[in-house]
Amino acid sequence: MGLKSTGKPDLALVVNDGPHRASAVVFTSNRAQANPILWSRKVAAQGTARAIVLNSGGANCFTGEFGYETTRLTAEAVAQALNAEAGPPAGRGAAAASAGGAEAAAGGGTSAGVVQANEILVCSTGLIGTGDQRFRDKIVHGIPQLAAALSSDDTTAAAAILTTDSVEKTATHVSDSGWTIGAIAKGAGMLAPGLATMLVVITTDAVLDNDALDRALRAATATSFDRLDSDGCMSTNDQVTLMSSGASEVAADEAEFAEALAAVCDSLAAQLQADAEGASHDIDIEVRGAASVEDAVEVGRSVARNNLFKAAIFGNDPNWGRVLAAIGTTRADFDPYAADVSFNGVRLCHAGGPDRPVDECDLTPRRTHVLIELFAGEHTATVRTNDLTHDYVHENSAYSS
Amino acid sequence: MGLKSTGKPDLALVVNDGPHRASAVVFTSNRAQANPILWSRKVAAQGTARAIVLNSGGANCFTGEFGYETTRLTAEAVAQALNAEAGPPAGRGAAAASAGGAEAAAGGGTSAGVVQANEILVCSTGLIGTGDQRFRDKIVHGIPQLAAALSSDDTTAAAAILTTDSVEKTATHVSDSGWTIGAIAKGAGMLAPGLATMLVVITTDAVLDNDALDRALRAATATSFDRLDSDGCMSTNDQVTLMSSGASEVAADEAEFAEALAAVCDSLAAQLQADAEGASHDIDIEVRGAASVEDAVEVGRSVARNNLFKAAIFGNDPNWGRVLAAIGTTRADFDPYAADVSFNGVRLCHAGGPDRPVDECDLTPRRTHVLIELFAGEHTATVRTNDLTHDYVHENSAYSS
Repeated sequence: MGLKSTGKPDLALVVNDGPHRASAVVFTSNRAQANPILWSRKVAAQGTARAIVLNSGGANCFTGEFGYETTRLTAEAVAQALNAEAGPPAGRGAAAASAGGAEAAAGGGTSAGVVQANEILVCSTGLIGTGDQRFRDKIVHGIPQLAAALSSDDTTAAAAILTTDSVEKTATHVSDSGWTIGAIAKGAGMLAPGLATMLVVITTDAVLDNDALDRALRAATATSFDRLDSDGCMSTNDQVTLMSSGASEVAADEAEFAEALAAVCDSLAAQLQADAEGASHDIDIEVRGAASVEDAVEVGRSVARNNLFKAAIFGNDPNWGRVLAAIGTTRADFDPYAADVSFNGVRLCHAGGPDRPVDECDLTPRRTHVLIELFAGEHTATVRTNDLTHDYVHENSAYSS
Repeated sequence: MGLKSTGKPDLALVVNDGPHRASAVVFTSNRAQANPILWSRKVAAQGTARAIVLNSGGANCFTGEFGYETTRLTAEAVAQALNAEAGPPAGRGAAAASAGGAEAAAGGGTSAGVVQANEILVCSTGLIGTGDQRFRDKIVHGIPQLAAALSSDDTTAAAAILTTDSVEKTATHVSDSGWTIGAIAKGAGMLAPGLATMLVVITTDAVLDNDALDRALRAATATSFDRLDSDGCMSTNDQVTLMSSGASEVAADEAEFAEALAAVCDSLAAQLQADAEGASHDIDIEVRGAASVEDAVEVGRSVARNNLFKAAIFGNDPNWGRVLAAIGTTRADFDPYAADVSFNGVRLCHAGGPDRPVDECDLTPRRTHVLIELFAGEHTATVRTNDLTHDYVHENSAYSS
């Protein structure tokens, strides 16, 4: 996937050149959904997503009818630009502006010819409430140039990304079976469960239909992005998109593909955690011995969202008491007086009481591991979070975002 | 209620001189409970609480059997001291050390004579995991002096409080019917629902039995302390205790008493909010037009616990988008695109879009009011919280607590 940085306003475009146009999309579970989310849901439902355009500089959320129209015009502009790049389809006349709207027959699989607006997914990120005429103009006018910059440097997708992210987050999996998965993630700011507030685009040349992609994506999302909980806040704009071109002509084994996709998403989640706003520690909260996976996640999340725990980590204080106080608020099935808590490999709490001396534990490294053993079953889960720092407070109080 | 400050380690004692010994106690819902909580539950269950002793300097939580014994010894020391103060009861011989343990016949109402250890409630606050021999000695050895300092300066209770709280938090209600309610609250640090992590002692001279006191206390707690959510963290040591001496000889009307108690608790909750660690804003999140009270509380709490919202308030930024992003995560019954959001009387969001200009809104005063109107029913609730500040991060990262 070719990544370009040109310093222009944040716009990115990823196009599925086919021959297949299979896709799966997972959206934020926040009931307050941005206009691009509302649009993209319709595109995903009609089944033949051919490209995705992403912008930052405004979430276009709670911007009413005007904002929805901006999204539609964005999709139209992309469709037009792609048709112009492709030239007139043989036997179908000149490339023409696609018809507006997203109402179209449900479908999937192969589609050639004129690109329709309702085949273009749109993602936006930025300040909620932003989405005026100036915002619309910047995006719509930037599309032709963006499309002209499309390039391919691998077999999975063609893309041009103009971004100001501090660190690029990408992941690739090359299967011995002859197909590949490539992925990019853009995210900062709000990071919470239910898609950890970010925009992810995954492409593959494996041959799989929409349903298979959907199963694999939901499973991969559940164990990766859904367990990334940097500050407990869920965005209005999250979207994880998977597009399959089928260009490898290899029909992927579904189980093998699902495993690879989960690994790719997990890698991206870890990269997002490492790039979280203002963090000084990346904290992995591993829960073992839970009665169920749901219990393990609930326990991990209760710690990940606990401000006193996160502030303690910022102070390099392995405060196991705050961990117990956090997990004691859950309804998970375990005995708080039987739990063990370890920080960076040192067990500080055993069977509900103090264990190793606290000074054996060094929390100065950025990577932090907290192990909570519940002795209530065989299930495990790891929830990723970050510490609560002065930089986080500063970045989220000094600027509107 | 006489309040004394002597600079000694934090110890406080409130004694019900009778003639009645009715009481009600509400405890933390955190499943990780401190030893004093475990002890006090037994005392409350047997029904004749005669005094309550409170200490800070250690939560005595996750301190095992040794810690539980410390609590028992504390209760015993108080019982001994009270018996020594009272002198030999007529016809019952010299005051003697009370028998240990809390297993006793259930009861209530009047009890005279020798004070038993299992009639003494114990509360502790401080670092989880603290509760060693030194801790035990300091408390147990401080009890006689504490008991000797008991004084009454009103009709509700005798108390001596040695505290290092920055601000005393008290509330009183004098009823025209001839009874009085007095209350003190000690709290800082963790403040969250389920008793907002603090120790509250309420006394009254109204005549009411345990069941009536229990009903009134649970109702008052639900609308006050349970809706105080300063940093989303629930303590292992919360306890709200109500003791009734019946000394007024007036049988209180239950409804009138419940209303007065709710007002007293609400006043204390507001004072605790104003004394929250490191806060620069006291934020009241008022939810109106909810489909149910539970919905109103869920919506208010989702905002109260949202770090991005709280950081924005710290920055004096009336960021209504973050409010909508927070309430959109709830399962409450309302349409996110129909909600109104106002800050300090200025409506910034109407029917899911921007309304008055943001610069009409001044968030510099400490008292902050956010009004969320859901237009989904007739129910309301207010959740109290504070902003997320650098001081909060500093106080909770620089020191173990």
